[in-house]
Amino acid sequence: MQSVRLLMIGLGNVGQGLLTILIEQEQSLRQYGLNFSVVGVNDLRLGSLADPRGLSLPDLLAAAAQGDLNRVAAEKKGLSVEDMLEQVDYDVLVEASYTNLQSGEPATGYIRKAVSSRKHVVTTNKGPIALHYPELQSLAEQNGVRIGFEGTVMSGTPAIFLGMNWLKAAGIQRIQGILNGTTNFILTKMEEGMEYAEALAEAQRLGYAEADPTGDVEGYDAAGKVVILSNVLMGHSIAMGEVDRQGITHLTSADIRDAQRAGQRWKLIGTIEAVEGTIRASVKPRMLPLSHPLAQVMGATNAITYTTRYLGEVTLIGAGAGRLQTGYALLADLLSIYRRESS
Amino acid sequence: MQSVRLLMIGLGNVGQGLLTILIEQEQSLRQYGLNFSVVGVNDLRLGSLADPRGLSLPDLLAAAAQGDLNRVAAEKKGLSVEDMLEQVDYDVLVEASYTNLQSGEPATGYIRKAVSSRKHVVTTNKGPIALHYPELQSLAEQNGVRIGFEGTVMSGTPAIFLGMNWLKAAGIQRIQGILNGTTNFILTKMEEGMEYAEALAEAQRLGYAEADPTGDVEGYDAAGKVVILSNVLMGHSIAMGEVDRQGITHLTSADIRDAQRAGQRWKLIGTIEAVEGTIRASVKPRMLPLSHPLAQVMGATNAITYTTRYLGEVTLIGAGAGRLQTGYALLADLLSIYRRESS
Repeated sequence: MQSVRLLMIGLGNVGQGLLTILIEQEQSLRQYGLNFSVVGVNDLRLGSLADPRGLSLPDLLAAAAQGDLNRVAAEKKGLSVEDMLEQVDYDVLVEASYTNLQSGEPATGYIRKAVSSRKHVVTTNKGPIALHYPELQSLAEQNGVRIGFEGTVMSGTPAIFLGMNWLKAAGIQRIQGILNGTTNFILTKMEEGMEYAEALAEAQRLGYAEADPTGDVEGYDAAGKVVILSNVLMGHSIAMGEVDRQGITHLTSADIRDAQRAGQRWKLIGTIEAVEGTIRASVKPRMLPLSHPLAQVMGATNAITYTTRYLGEVTLIGAGAGRLQTGYALLADLLSIYRRESS
Repeated sequence: MQSVRLLMIGLGNVGQGLLTILIEQEQSLRQYGLNFSVVGVNDLRLGSLADPRGLSLPDLLAAAAQGDLNRVAAEKKGLSVEDMLEQVDYDVLVEASYTNLQSGEPATGYIRKAVSSRKHVVTTNKGPIALHYPELQSLAEQNGVRIGFEGTVMSGTPAIFLGMNWLKAAGIQRIQGILNGTTNFILTKMEEGMEYAEALAEAQRLGYAEADPTGDVEGYDAAGKVVILSNVLMGHSIAMGEVDRQGITHLTSADIRDAQRAGQRWKLIGTIEAVEGTIRASVKPRMLPLSHPLAQVMGATNAITYTTRYLGEVTLIGAGAGRLQTGYALLADLLSIYRRESS
């Protein structure tokens, strides 16, 4: 039985999703020979706990739902993240704090620190991976540890896993995807007859869009994913600023209706393409014919089409967000690290 | 550099696809530390060659295209498969001979022989896997070798890889798929206005359907894939006879038009479902609403939707056949065997 001690930064929806799965799957994980414990949690809003004997996962989950970790039994309370990273004995940093696509901080600093201390990292945080992947990856290799980041693109729908472990060797020539669920939901509602503002309000009501929706509707979130896919799958490091980015805020109901009349549909499409030895990356609304595999992906669902030398087009469709979906991405990354170690 | 000596049974489209990729990717495979050679080939129609120093892959490919292997330089010619399996020193059996869904022979015997001699096997042959998977898999485990069979379902589109390495741990509750390209092509053509017989003739003209189309149009091919998916991904061994199977031969243009008028579309759907501790498996034409992800898959393309506990629905769409596509399945299986060994 291998004991894996997790240090969790961020216990929002994603962290809680992981806890839910760890609790439900405890028995089957033991059958894999893995015993996960959480030896530290730090959440900006909920509080901070650490205990080398492991915290009670059901207690953590219940306390998180009630908005305060303080009632959970723990040896130490109130440690800062920095102190935790120094003082707590752990095996994997689970980084699920808030996303910052300008600096990638503070998450990048946490990951750098963990990797430098020879700890594995699993994260769903786009910031560090979009902005600092080459540096972090090479630091991880130097230290003999791994960074899992499946959840940064399409939550637990395995866009990155499939790309790295199957499609890369088939020769990826182009990647196109609906990589942001909020904008796809808004476009779907507009096609059903809503104006942009009304559709955005509906997305906000359902929790798909944040109070400040800029990151989604102006295409920054999708651009971050485009950068990640380019760096990881196309072997080409590009920066956020190199993505030719345009959001959906200028699209009107009239545009949507014009497309419908032409048998087409507007989608916000992220594209990464190898062109004459370089990479062309963009996020743009595109009018697709209804026969295009991405044209049929409606609502908050995400999808990605890889065009490859040996397999032609391979399309993967699935959730782009969600508590359990993204929590599962973290678990799958953990399993991938420990399966490889034990094989 | 690891040397991997292949013994190939069957050098039809699939085997030739693998050769093409091995030739094109020789340099990048060497960068992985792998050096593939072919030390024996036996094809019922083209002939039989063996050479411990390795056969010339470009010569093999050219000779196969011309229909006769005899002009390729080789130490031994004309060996039977049985003699080859006894006399040739090899590392992996590449089994790509013809499919027999009644007995699985002669391929099953070849695979049994190889595995018993502690050789890995990669195959695209549905017969042995649909009919004898539990026996062959346990024989492989006893002998410390692996059997790769990605190409038996959806060619190189990684339906099995994704299921085994990602979705199984997410809790697969149901699998539904368009698993036969020929019938999907025929249904697409019927929707465009052809009668069944006309659409079948067109499929035969394009090489999608064989002279005797029974295996495809009566659903046997799809049923074989359903059995494989059930055995491998649902942990439930079922037999071909347990699949509730119905083909598309009774569908008329009137049925197609009725569906269209109702905003629906006929598809031949393979289903495997966990119901009250047991497995229900079927291959049947089903009328799907156009909003269903499988309804939009047209022509010879295949698709599969996994319904899972933690990820909801995950759909994979891609080629279901093809020379390079299926050849790539063999290469990916080979890489998966040797990457694991070297990691």
